[in-house]
Amino acid sequence: MTTTATTLHDQALAARVASRRLAATPAGVKNSALIAIATAIEANREKILVANEKDLVAARRDGLNFQMLDRMTLNAERVKDMADAARNIASLDDPIGEILESRDLASGLNLERVRVPLGVIGVIYESRPNVTIDIATLCLKSGNAVVLRGGKECILTNTVLAEIVKNSIETAGIPRDAVQFVESTDRALVKEMLEMDDVIDLMIPRGSADLVNFVGQNAKMPAITGGVGVCHTYIDVDAKLDDALAIVVNAKVQRPTVCNALDTVLVHQAIARQFLPELAIEFGVNNVELRADSRSMSVLDAIAGGAKITPARSDDFGTEFLALIASVKIVDSIDEALDHIAKYGSGHSEAIVSENVESVERFLTEVDAGVVFANTSTRFNDGAEFGLGAEVAISTNKLHARGPMGLKEITSYKWKVRGQGQIRQ
Amino acid sequence: MTTTATTLHDQALAARVASRRLAATPAGVKNSALIAIATAIEANREKILVANEKDLVAARRDGLNFQMLDRMTLNAERVKDMADAARNIASLDDPIGEILESRDLASGLNLERVRVPLGVIGVIYESRPNVTIDIATLCLKSGNAVVLRGGKECILTNTVLAEIVKNSIETAGIPRDAVQFVESTDRALVKEMLEMDDVIDLMIPRGSADLVNFVGQNAKMPAITGGVGVCHTYIDVDAKLDDALAIVVNAKVQRPTVCNALDTVLVHQAIARQFLPELAIEFGVNNVELRADSRSMSVLDAIAGGAKITPARSDDFGTEFLALIASVKIVDSIDEALDHIAKYGSGHSEAIVSENVESVERFLTEVDAGVVFANTSTRFNDGAEFGLGAEVAISTNKLHARGPMGLKEITSYKWKVRGQGQIRQ
Repeated sequence: MTTTATTLHDQALAARVASRRLAATPAGVKNSALIAIATAIEANREKILVANEKDLVAARRDGLNFQMLDRMTLNAERVKDMADAARNIASLDDPIGEILESRDLASGLNLERVRVPLGVIGVIYESRPNVTIDIATLCLKSGNAVVLRGGKECILTNTVLAEIVKNSIETAGIPRDAVQFVESTDRALVKEMLEMDDVIDLMIPRGSADLVNFVGQNAKMPAITGGVGVCHTYIDVDAKLDDALAIVVNAKVQRPTVCNALDTVLVHQAIARQFLPELAIEFGVNNVELRADSRSMSVLDAIAGGAKITPARSDDFGTEFLALIASVKIVDSIDEALDHIAKYGSGHSEAIVSENVESVERFLTEVDAGVVFANTSTRFNDGAEFGLGAEVAISTNKLHARGPMGLKEITSYKWKVRGQGQIRQ
Repeated sequence: MTTTATTLHDQALAARVASRRLAATPAGVKNSALIAIATAIEANREKILVANEKDLVAARRDGLNFQMLDRMTLNAERVKDMADAARNIASLDDPIGEILESRDLASGLNLERVRVPLGVIGVIYESRPNVTIDIATLCLKSGNAVVLRGGKECILTNTVLAEIVKNSIETAGIPRDAVQFVESTDRALVKEMLEMDDVIDLMIPRGSADLVNFVGQNAKMPAITGGVGVCHTYIDVDAKLDDALAIVVNAKVQRPTVCNALDTVLVHQAIARQFLPELAIEFGVNNVELRADSRSMSVLDAIAGGAKITPARSDDFGTEFLALIASVKIVDSIDEALDHIAKYGSGHSEAIVSENVESVERFLTEVDAGVVFANTSTRFNDGAEFGLGAEVAISTNKLHARGPMGLKEITSYKWKVRGQGQIRQ
C-alpha cells in the first residue's frame, strides 16, 4: 500500500472511531452543530468565493465546458443556499433512536427495534461544491460519520467547506474526525476507497452514470446505485389524451438532463393515430427530437410540421437520453407495454396514463420499479416532492432503500432485548 | 460459457420471468400451493426416504462423518416436520401488498409505499434436506421466485423434494418455473451463479462460515452475510452474579455449535475474584474449556477443580468457537468492554448483565450489533424466539435486514403514486 493509501485508510478508521460517539450524540447537539455550520458558511463567504474563483481559473485553463463551469460556480446567493440547506436539515426530525416496534415475548423478554446510524458513509461526487455541505449535514443529522471524496475541479472550494464543517462540529462538541475530506485528487484513491469495507459501511456515488456504475461494480461494501433512469410513460387506450400530452411533455422537457426525465413513450395502437401527431407537434414546439419505431413512423409520416422525427434504432430503447430526445413505440396492449418495461426499464420511474382503474392498478402492481406513477409525470420522483425534506440519492436498488432517499434511508436498526435473567430452554 | 452455465442462467432467467406472475399472485393461491406441498410431501414419504437412503449410502461410502450423516438423515418424523413447516408458512400473514405508509402531497398526488417481493432469490446450502422445503416455501409465501443449489451429498433427496414442490405449485396455478433446482453438483456452478446479478436479486448462503464468506466476497448481487457470530457477554460490576452465571452457562452450553452461542466472557475487575471461580466450576461441570487472559489466569490459578483452563492466545479473542470453549478477559470498566466488543465483535449478538440501568442503556445504545441483550442469553437471537414464525437467516449486514430474518425481511417496497394529471412546475 502506498503512503497515500495508508493515509486514506487512517482517515476512514478515524471516522469509524468517531462514528461510535456520533451515534450516541443527542439531537440537540447535532442541531447546534448544523446551525454552527450554517453560520460559519455565511461568516466565511469571502474565503469560500476566493477559493472557488481559483478553482474556476484552473477549470477554464483546463478547458472545462460551460455546463461544468456553471455547476462549479458559487456566488453570494449560492453560498446562502448552502447555509439555508444546513439550517433546513437542523429543522428536520432526528431519525435516530426512533422505536420502530416494541413487544413482549412469551418468555417475558421485551423486544425493541430501534433506528440507528449505519456507521461510516463514503461519498464520491463530482462538480457541485454544495454536495460537500448537503452530504456532510445529512450524515451528521443521521448520526453517520462520512468520508467525502469530491472532484478534482472543486478541490480548493471543497477543502475550505470541509474545514468549516469540521471546525463547526468540533465547537458543538462532536469529534472533528466524524467528517473526513480526502484532499488528494489522485484518481487511484477512488478504487482504494471502494475496497475499505472494514471501515466504510456504505458507498454513495453522486455523479455521472459512469461513476455510479464504476462504484456499483467495484465497491466491496454495499453501494447505492441510483441516478440512472430509463423512464417510460405508457399511454393506455383509456387515457385522457389532453392529460397524456401534458404529462409526457412535462416528463420530457421540464428538466431533460435529470434521471427522472422521460425517455420512451409507449402508445396503445388504438389511440396512436390520434395521439402521435399531437405529440409530434408539441415536441416540435419544445425542440424534442422523436425517435420512432416503424409502426409509429408510418403514423407520423403523414403529418406535416412538428418535431424532428427519425427512425428509432434498437439502442434507442433502454437508453437514458438526458437530452431533448425521446423514443416512441406503438404497443398492442398493456401486456406488451409491461413486457417492454420489464425488458428495458432501469427500475427508476415508470408511468401509465389511463382512466381505466383496472389497467392503472395492474400497472402499479406489476411494474417493478422504485416509483410507479399513474396519471402524472415521472418528474415527481424526488425527495423534496415526496416531502422527505432532503435527498441523498434516488435508489434503484431493491435491497434497503428504494426510490428517493432522505435521512431515514441512510439509517439501519438494531434489536434491543431486555430481560430479567431469562435463559433459553 | 459452458453448456451447463447456459442452462443455469436459463433456469435463473425462467425464474425471473415467473417471478413477475408470482409477485401478483393472491395470498389464497400461494397458501393453496403451500398446503399442496405439505400434502404431497406426506403422500411421497416412501419415495423421499428411498432417495435419502441412496444419498446416505453414497455418503457413508465417501466417509462423511457422523454429524454430517445425522444432519442428512430423514425419517418418517422428519418428513412430517417438513410438511408441518410448509403448513406453518401457509398460516402466516402474507407480507405482500401491505401498505407501509400512505399520504397526500400538496400537489394532490397520493403516495403509497407498498411491500413487494424482491424478485428472484438464490440460495446455496449444505446438508440438511429440509432447507429445500423451508426456503422454497418462505420464498413462495413472500412472492419471490427461487433458485436452489443444495449440497452434493443430498442431491437425490433434494431432487425429489424440488420436484414435489414444482408439481404442487403448478397444480395450484403458480408457474413451476418459480422454483428452480440446480441438478448439477459441479462446484464451478456456485461461482457462476454468484455472477448472475442480471437475474438474481439476492443471494442467501446457508452453511459453514467458509461458504458464507465465499458468497459474501464473490457475489455480484447483494448477499445476506450472517450466521457468523463472535458473541460476548459482559458481566458488569453491578451484575446479579447468580443471573450472570446462569446466563453465561446457558449462552455457552445450551447449543454450542450455533452462531448465537457465547464465545467470550468479559468480567469487570471488581467482581472477578468472586465470579470467575464460580464460573470455572460451572464450566467444569459442563465440560467447557476456559481460555483465560493473564489477569483472569492469576485469579483462576488459585482455585482447585473446575474447568480445564489454559492461557488465552491472542486469537482466542475474536474467534467463533462453535464448541465447548470460551475465552475470558478481565476489564477495568464498561468502557473497556465496549472497546473490546467494538474491536472483536461480529455484529451478531452481544450481552450485558447488570442491575445498573445507566450501564444497561449505555451498552444497548453503544454496542453496534444486530441484537443487543441485557440480562439474558445471546441464544435468544432467533427468528422463532422473536415470533417471526420462520427464519431465513440471521443477518449481520447493516443494510436492509438486521438480526433474525423472517418473511418480511425478504421483501422490498415500491412507491405507488396516483395523480389526476398533475405535472411538475
